[in-house]
Amino acid sequence: MNDNLDALFKPRAVALIGASVKELSIGNVIIKNLLHYKFRGPVYPVNPKVDEIRGLKAYPSVMDVPGEVDLAHIVIPPPFVPEEVENCGKKGIKAIIINTAGFKEMGAEGKALEDDFLARARKYGIRIVGPNCQGIINSDPAINAYCNFTFTYPEPGFISVVAQSGGVGAVIMQAFYDMGIGQRMYASNGNGSDVSITEIISYYGKDNKTRAIVLYAESLDDPLEFIAVAKKVTARKPVLAITAGRTEKGAEASRSHIGGLAGSISMDLIYKKAGILTFSSQEDLCQAAVALSSQPVPKGNKVGIITNTGGPSVIAIDELVRCGLEIPPLSEKAAQTLKGSMLESASIRNPLDVVATAGPGHFKSALEVMMKEPQFDNLYLNFVTPPFVDCENVAREIVAAAKAGNKPVICNYMTDKQKWGGTSKILKDGEIPCFDFAETAARALYALVCYNRIRSATEGSIKIFTDVNKDAVRSILENAMSQKREILTAAEVYGILEAYRVPVAPWRVAHDVKEVVAMAGEIGFPVVIKADSEKIIHKSDVGGVAVNIQDAKEVTGVAETMKRNLGDGIKFFVQKFLPKGRELIIGAKAVKGVGHIIMFGLGGIFVEVLKDVSFSISPVSDTEAMELINSVKAAPLIDGFRGEKGINKEKAVEIIRRISMLGTDFPVIRELDLNPLFATGDEICVVDARIIL
Amino acid sequence: MNDNLDALFKPRAVALIGASVKELSIGNVIIKNLLHYKFRGPVYPVNPKVDEIRGLKAYPSVMDVPGEVDLAHIVIPPPFVPEEVENCGKKGIKAIIINTAGFKEMGAEGKALEDDFLARARKYGIRIVGPNCQGIINSDPAINAYCNFTFTYPEPGFISVVAQSGGVGAVIMQAFYDMGIGQRMYASNGNGSDVSITEIISYYGKDNKTRAIVLYAESLDDPLEFIAVAKKVTARKPVLAITAGRTEKGAEASRSHIGGLAGSISMDLIYKKAGILTFSSQEDLCQAAVALSSQPVPKGNKVGIITNTGGPSVIAIDELVRCGLEIPPLSEKAAQTLKGSMLESASIRNPLDVVATAGPGHFKSALEVMMKEPQFDNLYLNFVTPPFVDCENVAREIVAAAKAGNKPVICNYMTDKQKWGGTSKILKDGEIPCFDFAETAARALYALVCYNRIRSATEGSIKIFTDVNKDAVRSILENAMSQKREILTAAEVYGILEAYRVPVAPWRVAHDVKEVVAMAGEIGFPVVIKADSEKIIHKSDVGGVAVNIQDAKEVTGVAETMKRNLGDGIKFFVQKFLPKGRELIIGAKAVKGVGHIIMFGLGGIFVEVLKDVSFSISPVSDTEAMELINSVKAAPLIDGFRGEKGINKEKAVEIIRRISMLGTDFPVIRELDLNPLFATGDEICVVDARIIL
Repeated sequence: MNDNLDALFKPRAVALIGASVKELSIGNVIIKNLLHYKFRGPVYPVNPKVDEIRGLKAYPSVMDVPGEVDLAHIVIPPPFVPEEVENCGKKGIKAIIINTAGFKEMGAEGKALEDDFLARARKYGIRIVGPNCQGIINSDPAINAYCNFTFTYPEPGFISVVAQSGGVGAVIMQAFYDMGIGQRMYASNGNGSDVSITEIISYYGKDNKTRAIVLYAESLDDPLEFIAVAKKVTARKPVLAITAGRTEKGAEASRSHIGGLAGSISMDLIYKKAGILTFSSQEDLCQAAVALSSQPVPKGNKVGIITNTGGPSVIAIDELVRCGLEIPPLSEKAAQTLKGSMLESASIRNPLDVVATAGPGHFKSALEVMMKEPQFDNLYLNFVTPPFVDCENVAREIVAAAKAGNKPVICNYMTDKQKWGGTSKILKDGEIPCFDFAETAARALYALVCYNRIRSATEGSIKIFTDVNKDAVRSILENAMSQKREILTAAEVYGILEAYRVPVAPWRVAHDVKEVVAMAGEIGFPVVIKADSEKIIHKSDVGGVAVNIQDAKEVTGVAETMKRNLGDGIKFFVQKFLPKGRELIIGAKAVKGVGHIIMFGLGGIFVEVLKDVSFSISPVSDTEAMELINSVKAAPLIDGFRGEKGINKEKAVEIIRRISMLGTDFPVIRELDLNPLFATGDEICVVDARIIL
Repeated sequence: MNDNLDALFKPRAVALIGASVKELSIGNVIIKNLLHYKFRGPVYPVNPKVDEIRGLKAYPSVMDVPGEVDLAHIVIPPPFVPEEVENCGKKGIKAIIINTAGFKEMGAEGKALEDDFLARARKYGIRIVGPNCQGIINSDPAINAYCNFTFTYPEPGFISVVAQSGGVGAVIMQAFYDMGIGQRMYASNGNGSDVSITEIISYYGKDNKTRAIVLYAESLDDPLEFIAVAKKVTARKPVLAITAGRTEKGAEASRSHIGGLAGSISMDLIYKKAGILTFSSQEDLCQAAVALSSQPVPKGNKVGIITNTGGPSVIAIDELVRCGLEIPPLSEKAAQTLKGSMLESASIRNPLDVVATAGPGHFKSALEVMMKEPQFDNLYLNFVTPPFVDCENVAREIVAAAKAGNKPVICNYMTDKQKWGGTSKILKDGEIPCFDFAETAARALYALVCYNRIRSATEGSIKIFTDVNKDAVRSILENAMSQKREILTAAEVYGILEAYRVPVAPWRVAHDVKEVVAMAGEIGFPVVIKADSEKIIHKSDVGGVAVNIQDAKEVTGVAETMKRNLGDGIKFFVQKFLPKGRELIIGAKAVKGVGHIIMFGLGGIFVEVLKDVSFSISPVSDTEAMELINSVKAAPLIDGFRGEKGINKEKAVEIIRRISMLGTDFPVIRELDLNPLFATGDEICVVDARIIL
């Protein structure tokens, strides 16, 4: 990773290879954009057939361009791209945006061209954005780079955007523009053959004027690197991401519970692990970014509400409460102060309804009192602009209060922004985030509270258990792999779990009926007997499982029947039969580039009907393991319900951490299901398990 | 109810009692609005102190106004209102908007004034809007009535709005305005002392130019009348409502499960019963209204997607699938046709990605083919405006296809609406609903599908069971009421259930130990014995419940212990002890003005931890009862899970309908809990129940 992308984002001169006189062409639109956006450096159209494009002198080759060039666009057809990259190298160009499509995504021929231009770029130390991409924008007035063929010209601002999909990037850029919100930098890197999303995030992270980063990615080349980099960024400034492809069906056929359940959730988990705020709605994301880039991070989730209209505050409270925010009452002292300063018809409580006829003085007092109340971490305003009120001075009071205080102020500003242009400008210049709807304002405030939670969360510790026997596991896995088996036998599975000190019911493997009887005696009745053969996958379908066997006579009968039905070659897996406890499920699934996704849930109907499970990316820390447990909907059952004792959460946390470590130590384990574990009294014990390589 | 509100919505002349020369006053703003909106009739300011307001002659009294007046505003202080209402009556005015606040909501004095003006209005047949309200707007160019002090001047359109809260009404009006969407009529009736939301809905329902109705109400005076009226309207045109106050904590302390769970959901249920589409977001509602007022109602939920950009269609599919819409594949024939007409880089499937460089011809072919595909009920477009494409002609093709077809067309239109003004105007004039974000466009399409479901749903039948014994129930209830008891004894509860033929476990009431033994024998072991006394509420806390009693000896022991501990006066409720089946809960709760809310759920943790219950307003039809059962999240358990037999749904439906009828027949029943019922094999039987009056 190399996040020095100055040549890309702060070019001093730009060349356009494939510049065109045709107005409806990318090679013309980019020139138009650079000129319109008042790019501070020279723009060099490159086109061997014409002398001039949009009033600029055109050059037959990039080699003919006078003076230094930092950044080139290439918009010519794929076959000619590698040679032009070579020319750029010779010219000393440091960054290239290849807008042209038709490379790797079109098959082997395109792939070869892509490999070719990448090799040449590497030779010269050139960084490539794209191919099949839009490019970048930098609104810094000292730069004014619009190296992009889109159509939204952002004002300078504090939000930087990176989008794999140019379409989504354009929508987000336009949304900020429509809201009157400036932007700092923009990048859409399309195929991402060289400059990665991760590098761009890192670059934005170091840019002092970027206060919030917006991200759209459908996949990541190196999720672990991304997590490591993004984590550092999110500790300093918020990163907001759209999670797309949530409903995509997991293509892979699955042979375990976790396989089916963890299908398409890995982007969510990657973002969570990196401390990124996720949104399923682009609009919610944009509105949250406005709040996060202008307001201080709140200390908590408590909200004081000032309103000059009834209904919208009802809607606001609905949404705030739905988001889990608190709306504590006014202090007695504050209420007394407000009784003296508010209109008679005002409602002195939280929400504080100053009523529609309230003027600047009433707002001033309301804001001052609410800002001082220590039990509020945030101020939320519903402000409609009555035609009979001096709204401009109300706006000035709002701005003054926000500047004087250290709590976020979020405003549901209800008006015709053109008719109330003066008021709107005062709020905008005062950096008060304004939202048309009570709900959206509430959700923007919620994003602030979430970011505070992310920043103040303790990361927890990853434990390296030293009491495990890695060699035993390695030998079991190597043996299975040497036999090209993907599904481990029960003895192998329990051997691995025991080696990692995951509590399992006592077990033995017997080779004949006599041995079964002896071993059942050693373990103690009642027992379970399973036919243990690599060839039998669905044991219960073929009469290969017998449970709750009470004595030696029963054992003999069961074992002889199995032998008769399933063949002499079978072995017998004998295990203690445990009384039914609270069922749990813990699983791990390998995800390419990520490691393992660890799953927790209550077993039975909770996992199979209600899909009530939680996930985290390994390695799972103690706090993450505890959060996994507490975040299932049925968590009250885990804590104990109606006098029934809860499960031993510390033990569950330990098992999760041991499974997480097992996955990290042995990436070859593709899927692991402990299903069920029984939690009885203080103990938790694996009752059934499978491992797939 | 009297829904002839023409004098209000189509006034030929308007007087303003309390007109003012002060610009920042309601009495001036309303005149300004009427003039600015070009009201077609005369406007008469009434003010005894001045001669002229905003260039209009002022009159000392409404009695002095020349010519007929249909509608008057009253904006003077409350004490003077009744007399002015009287004057209006004498003048022959038919409708009054009382903007002034300070009546019933301020206590007894205000209430007296309100009663006074209402009595006078009734005497003259005047209809009153308000007090404490905004008023009305009618954008019909033949009327142009802006009888309101707000600030949004809607263009003519097809959506009519009624909002109890003026603040929410103003937000919605402004939202349509900002989207460039016209509106038909608007009303905010504040306190609603006379003209009701129901009457306004009915009036809008009969207005031919109103294609969709938007509603915001926090409460309704007569919910049953509302349901009856709104049902007729929703059969003809969509009604969309915001549900507010969802998170309000049920104020009433509750002594049953249903009491706690049905706290604040009655507005949702009222809307559902009336066939109204509900939204928790004002913005979603407005966007759905745009789609519903411009597009045909689709025949089903299948969507064909055309896109010229990748990422936004990924987001669209996420949201469409999340809403339960289907995205079937293209037919082979359609794919063949498109292969001939699309660009080489296009992706020929559903979603059909025509790619960013696609021009009008490509769109034309794509639209024609997708519109003809019989497996699509709806067309969804992601249309970004590339600067190198002839977007105006693309827009013309979209409009032409929508006009020629009979399927809804919804467009996620991604552009700078000013720079692409021509394209935007073509889409607007062609009534193509355009949305900035893929998700919001998807949700608007979902609203169309929901409205189709409402319109095509079979209402189901309300059964009047003739095999019930109403007299028996009446006598039990009268007896309890005569003793001022709110909680019925077990014998009373089971007597009522048996009288309504709700299956209960066999039971008897015994008066002494000997009788207990005899009755247990009659019922057959095992049995349950409960101390049955009006004085003991929590029986199990005082040793008043014993279950699974196996024989006469045990019975004697249990009964004697109870007698010793609880006193000689107790009776014994003896009941068959049933083996544990699948637990269900069915409940009923009286809600003022509504009747009963009927609840269904699985018992135990499903109701107590997961709150997985469903509700409907009585009377519950067969289809509604079946929907109650199928809409709980744990429905797969009801259908049978992992080889376990499902419950007999027909029997559950019958019990729900009988309980619904019991509530309708005896409104005095405040809360009724059947908790649990056991479903075993084909039978369902009440195991425990309580009734509260």
